[in-house]
Amino acid sequence: MPRYKLIIEYDGTPFAGWQRQANGRSVQEAIEDAVAGFSGERVTIGGAGRTDAGVHALGQVAHVDLARDWPADTVRKALNSHLKPEPVAVLAAELAGDDFDARFSAKARHYRYRIINRQSPLTIDAGRAWQVRTPLDAGAMQRAAQRLTGNHDFTTFRNADCQAKGPVKTLDRLIVRRQGEEILIEASARSFLHSQVRSIAGSLRLVGEGRWSADDLSDALAAKDRKACGPVAPAEGLYLVKVEY
Amino acid sequence: MPRYKLIIEYDGTPFAGWQRQANGRSVQEAIEDAVAGFSGERVTIGGAGRTDAGVHALGQVAHVDLARDWPADTVRKALNSHLKPEPVAVLAAELAGDDFDARFSAKARHYRYRIINRQSPLTIDAGRAWQVRTPLDAGAMQRAAQRLTGNHDFTTFRNADCQAKGPVKTLDRLIVRRQGEEILIEASARSFLHSQVRSIAGSLRLVGEGRWSADDLSDALAAKDRKACGPVAPAEGLYLVKVEY
Repeated sequence: MPRYKLIIEYDGTPFAGWQRQANGRSVQEAIEDAVAGFSGERVTIGGAGRTDAGVHALGQVAHVDLARDWPADTVRKALNSHLKPEPVAVLAAELAGDDFDARFSAKARHYRYRIINRQSPLTIDAGRAWQVRTPLDAGAMQRAAQRLTGNHDFTTFRNADCQAKGPVKTLDRLIVRRQGEEILIEASARSFLHSQVRSIAGSLRLVGEGRWSADDLSDALAAKDRKACGPVAPAEGLYLVKVEY
Repeated sequence: MPRYKLIIEYDGTPFAGWQRQANGRSVQEAIEDAVAGFSGERVTIGGAGRTDAGVHALGQVAHVDLARDWPADTVRKALNSHLKPEPVAVLAAELAGDDFDARFSAKARHYRYRIINRQSPLTIDAGRAWQVRTPLDAGAMQRAAQRLTGNHDFTTFRNADCQAKGPVKTLDRLIVRRQGEEILIEASARSFLHSQVRSIAGSLRLVGEGRWSADDLSDALAAKDRKACGPVAPAEGLYLVKVEY
């Protein structure tokens, strides 16, 4: 039974998140339905990142087992055809070994958080970034962010319903940079806790506003207490950019 | 009666274009209604560029005369408040002289056309760019584009319903560049004919596909014949970026 690796892009706005659930349409369900439409098979697909409702993906990865040995690009085209009109696209499909698991084989996950730092409401980027009105000091955010890289207990930056075994993770890279009115936060790690990037983005915003110092951010981390976290940034600014294997 | 210059951003998707018309909601009407909601005045506003249905703006400019001398930023905030939930935002408002006319005082208009050159459908950028599946040679497009800069009779690249006095315009700048899977066409001129940028983008696409040479593009220009134009590129890829005075 051949296994296919799929690279998937989606606009998270209309979805209840990646993972199949009772309440609301999920991206996983949309793709599983497309597989059924194409090959007639009811499959369960595994994804690399369980993005929340409203979170976007530029390079989510999933694997799917199909009964027949289709050319990989036929799978890509057929799934895209059956996914219409939902805002989900399979960017690439390739044959993968039986031991490939989109979730457990992942070596690195890259997320981006987009803040648009301006007074006026968003139009073209509505639902695609977080609008923050207070002027943000991206340099201060970037300097403070370095307090969070490395191996730490991230309890402060972890949602209460997180299903990970423990709160200790290694954050390999956390970069904050300004491009005009936009502030981009790039985060890379082998794996993340639930809401970790949004929790960090929300706390860095306080640093950017001058309400928190870098030491306050370090103290929040050291507290290992969810109540020490800044207000969590909204889902609409978050993108799963890439997964490496 | 103080005159205000407004810099306006909008997602053109839900609108029948900039200009007020009988069929469908226009951006002009949305702003005029916001003025009425704010000051009670029924005004007619003038815009720098009459963008078509589905065309976006990052920096459209309009002027409006109000009876009272409001602080400019009060005008910006109030209009944005009354524009909700439509995807139109006033990015800046400032007092302008009585002789300022958003359309006739403009010295330069800058447009951008976004092509996403890939096989799979658009999701996050759906309605915000033109998806072209055939691989495009951006270098060939950029070289050919230089045949169109300067002062020419642009009859070939002019929509039949264009209301400009004549077909002769000076295209100051036409740049084509690739950024990953995206191809950006940047066009600058004092003024443009109706559908000129979309007509040029559609013809440059033929060059990028290798179906037209640079000489074919020159021949199309020299023909001064609308029938010599390539298929016009769709509205959704076009952005009015900036207007200079």
